[in-house]
Amino acid sequence: MNLLAPRNTWYPLTWSRNVTRTLSRHRILGMDLVVYRSEAGRAIALDDACPHRLAPLSMGKLRGDAIECGYHGMTFGPEGRCVRIPGQPVIPPNARVPSYPLHEKMGLVWIWPGEAALADPSLIYDLPQHGEPGWHAAEGDALRIETNYLNLADNLCDPAHVSFVHLSTLGNSASEEIPVEHSFGERGVLVWRWIKSAPPIPLFAKYGNFQGHVDRWHYYDYIAPCIAVIDFGSADAGIIADPADRGAGLRIFACHFITPVDDNICIDHWLHVRNFALDDADVVQRLHADFRIAFNEDKEILERIEQVARARPNAKTIRLAIDAAPQRMRRIVERMVASEAEARASA
Amino acid sequence: MNLLAPRNTWYPLTWSRNVTRTLSRHRILGMDLVVYRSEAGRAIALDDACPHRLAPLSMGKLRGDAIECGYHGMTFGPEGRCVRIPGQPVIPPNARVPSYPLHEKMGLVWIWPGEAALADPSLIYDLPQHGEPGWHAAEGDALRIETNYLNLADNLCDPAHVSFVHLSTLGNSASEEIPVEHSFGERGVLVWRWIKSAPPIPLFAKYGNFQGHVDRWHYYDYIAPCIAVIDFGSADAGIIADPADRGAGLRIFACHFITPVDDNICIDHWLHVRNFALDDADVVQRLHADFRIAFNEDKEILERIEQVARARPNAKTIRLAIDAAPQRMRRIVERMVASEAEARASA
Amino acid sequence: MNLLAPRNTWYPLTWSRNVTRTLSRHRILGMDLVVYRSEAGRAIALDDACPHRLAPLSMGKLRGDAIECGYHGMTFGPEGRCVRIPGQPVIPPNARVPSYPLHEKMGLVWIWPGEAALADPSLIYDLPQHGEPGWHAAEGDALRIETNYLNLADNLCDPAHVSFVHLSTLGNSASEEIPVEHSFGERGVLVWRWIKSAPPIPLFAKYGNFQGHVDRWHYYDYIAPCIAVIDFGSADAGIIADPADRGAGLRIFACHFITPVDDNICIDHWLHVRNFALDDADVVQRLHADFRIAFNEDKEILERIEQVARARPNAKTIRLAIDAAPQRMRRIVERMVASEAEARASA
Repeated sequence: MNLLAPRNTWYPLTWSRNVTRTLSRHRILGMDLVVYRSEAGRAIALDDACPHRLAPLSMGKLRGDAIECGYHGMTFGPEGRCVRIPGQPVIPPNARVPSYPLHEKMGLVWIWPGEAALADPSLIYDLPQHGEPGWHAAEGDALRIETNYLNLADNLCDPAHVSFVHLSTLGNSASEEIPVEHSFGERGVLVWRWIKSAPPIPLFAKYGNFQGHVDRWHYYDYIAPCIAVIDFGSADAGIIADPADRGAGLRIFACHFITPVDDNICIDHWLHVRNFALDDADVVQRLHADFRIAFNEDKEILERIEQVARARPNAKTIRLAIDAAPQRMRRIVERMVASEAEARASA
Repeated sequence: MNLLAPRNTWYPLTWSRNVTRTLSRHRILGMDLVVYRSEAGRAIALDDACPHRLAPLSMGKLRGDAIECGYHGMTFGPEGRCVRIPGQPVIPPNARVPSYPLHEKMGLVWIWPGEAALADPSLIYDLPQHGEPGWHAAEGDALRIETNYLNLADNLCDPAHVSFVHLSTLGNSASEEIPVEHSFGERGVLVWRWIKSAPPIPLFAKYGNFQGHVDRWHYYDYIAPCIAVIDFGSADAGIIADPADRGAGLRIFACHFITPVDDNICIDHWLHVRNFALDDADVVQRLHADFRIAFNEDKEILERIEQVARARPNAKTIRLAIDAAPQRMRRIVERMVASEAEARASA
Repeated sequence: MNLLAPRNTWYPLTWSRNVTRTLSRHRILGMDLVVYRSEAGRAIALDDACPHRLAPLSMGKLRGDAIECGYHGMTFGPEGRCVRIPGQPVIPPNARVPSYPLHEKMGLVWIWPGEAALADPSLIYDLPQHGEPGWHAAEGDALRIETNYLNLADNLCDPAHVSFVHLSTLGNSASEEIPVEHSFGERGVLVWRWIKSAPPIPLFAKYGNFQGHVDRWHYYDYIAPCIAVIDFGSADAGIIADPADRGAGLRIFACHFITPVDDNICIDHWLHVRNFALDDADVVQRLHADFRIAFNEDKEILERIEQVARARPNAKTIRLAIDAAPQRMRRIVERMVASEAEARASA
């Protein structure tokens, strides 16, 4: 494991709907966790290995809020402390498994893998439109991609690929030559472009009932290390004078909450929030279908690139103008990891 | 290969029924062997690689008691000496393949991988009840388990897991809190416990026609490096006053003869010997079915543990009271290997 | 990659029939190439990785004679030079991918992986009978074998194995004890034997209508590093007085043009050229069927040997008389590689 990922931050672990009274196993940052819900409904994550013989606790049984190991019955409470060793009255003080702070928001369970004392739920990313009147949020999938999570983050700081990769859904050739703009912050990058007075992209052509050309936008908002929200939409050409008035058009936030599984695998937990056809369940299914096509196109290209990169560990690559934001994204993550290392060293 | 296994000892190689006039391939201690039966019926094992170009001899042809390599026809007798090189009159003296002493007992072919001069068949483990009147022996399976053979040996020095792993067959919750007892010898460990006046376990409930509670026993008899025999049974509560009188109850010896295939794989050759329903072939099939359920439960947990252990090469584990016998088991095997190394060094 | 293979030589890359206006991917000497045909019909091979983010160019689109990368639209001409970067007016001078000289001959595309200036098509192996009147050439398959290409070359410098491996097609026991003869050159080895006055082998028995015994020959002509042509045939016993008159019998050239894919994989591109039943398409299919049986026998034995060799990296093997030619073959390839290294060092 040589994963470049800060620890003192919230990561998406899995959809809340997956956390039940049945033990399940999830992997993040190279750690295997057993995840379940307490009788009172609280999500709990423990290290998924009994400290006795390393049997996965997820093979065991839920006894109230505790887990009984399926091999010899050692039992651990929701904070990871051993509460029973069958046939042995004394429980050694080191008989415990690590537990991790969890918090639920936007339909996901978020985990804080770092110092538990710092785990402030208010630090979890907030999309104001999620749950607001006038907007409809729909949970998507957990798309597993066989590449390092920063390679997916590259893709999500990069509106330029849309013109070539997603021609049946999110892009068309009208944007090919339009440069991207960007702004950089302490914790993130924002990359965007407007395509003015051009044919609508296939996805919006279905819902917009546009009679002629449209103005459309793609804003890629990345917040290190695992949040990427794409604000994109379209309106009849000319009607949006101020870019801040994007709500006057058809607008979608496509949220990508990235789980770094380990060095070589990540999961894209995606959902979308839109301001049109709010009561139309059919539109949700059609959008899901379109997003599945598009995100699978990204998955395929990222996985093929990963294979090439592994076969050529010393390959030299060329930087283009569109790489400024992905490069800054990596600098931000590196800085986060380095400052955690410094804090540990000085402590 | 970093397999902790003595060489000057007998190991089970395969069931006698598998050794025929057709060449077959078996792997033990990281060695691939070609195994067959001579015209006179003797089992023979040679190194399964032609010394010319390393073609497996098991791809060749049996010519009387010799094997003709399938690539260029080099032919080797049952002691491994080359007896023919087609197109070449002179046979170099180093043209030979290693051969290994074999002996058949209890339906198995046993192999001595060490110094051939020391291969005394009387050293093979003997279960007096096997083949005796009043007992019926039934051959089971060759269960492949993807873990080092000593991890299976751990499991077979450990009666405590039965209460949690084998609830539908060999165990029930009555034994959860009963500590195990043990005695240690030069070459083995014996671990046991009695569960007095408790409901019968599922397996014996089927055959015992018990009206009330029973006394039951589990004796785990391990002899390094590859023999594990479990003597277990039940009788109406109170009727066995002296533990030596276990024959008065329903009693089964479940024999596990372990083949260390290589570092990561072992085979559990299991059979059972019982003192009830001797003429009932149906009981044999039902016992086989129960044992398959139980031993597959062990296989699953051992293989899952192996995966966890590989993912955490530096994991620290906790020792419990029930680990005394498995720990001693490993010390015995280490001592056997060390004393062989000393003998080689002083020779 | 530690592949012993000279660079300044022609290798078979793939059948010409596989190179079309659809992008395809081929691997040779550990290099992945995208291969296609220009609008004018010329075969083109470029390195199959966009230098921007390493996306395989074979996932892209053909635009005239250029390839547009499927990720961000970078476009490369048939010599590998970048001709377009969407959204960016300046093309950096290092924006290019390697291209390789190709030439088509005998139904195959040949590639020169070394110094392009030295790529003289007249150096490609020539079989005079291919395409001549009185002979019929038939393309076979691309047989993938999981072993280093030099292990296949061993097999193709070795007529002795035919008596044991190919008994249903190319050999019979009459040749078992007949030693092979050989002559060595700067770039190749020739190994042969005649089997006089013996039953015909199965393959020729089908077509020869022989009434009695035949004289047959096997000439194995290897030219380093990747050419192996087997000239074999049969005639009624006694009618060929001079070995040079082999054309008086049924005669086949079985050509093996070997592609070293990487350290562990090669492809045998085989075809055959014969002097009988020239207009009989059915004979071609029957010969194909026989050769498929025979070459799959070689594949199986070579792959099994490879597995044994990997499991025994330090195995000591024995050299026999029949190994003189394969050994010389390896010396020739080593010398070619060494002299290229010297030329580079002195340059």
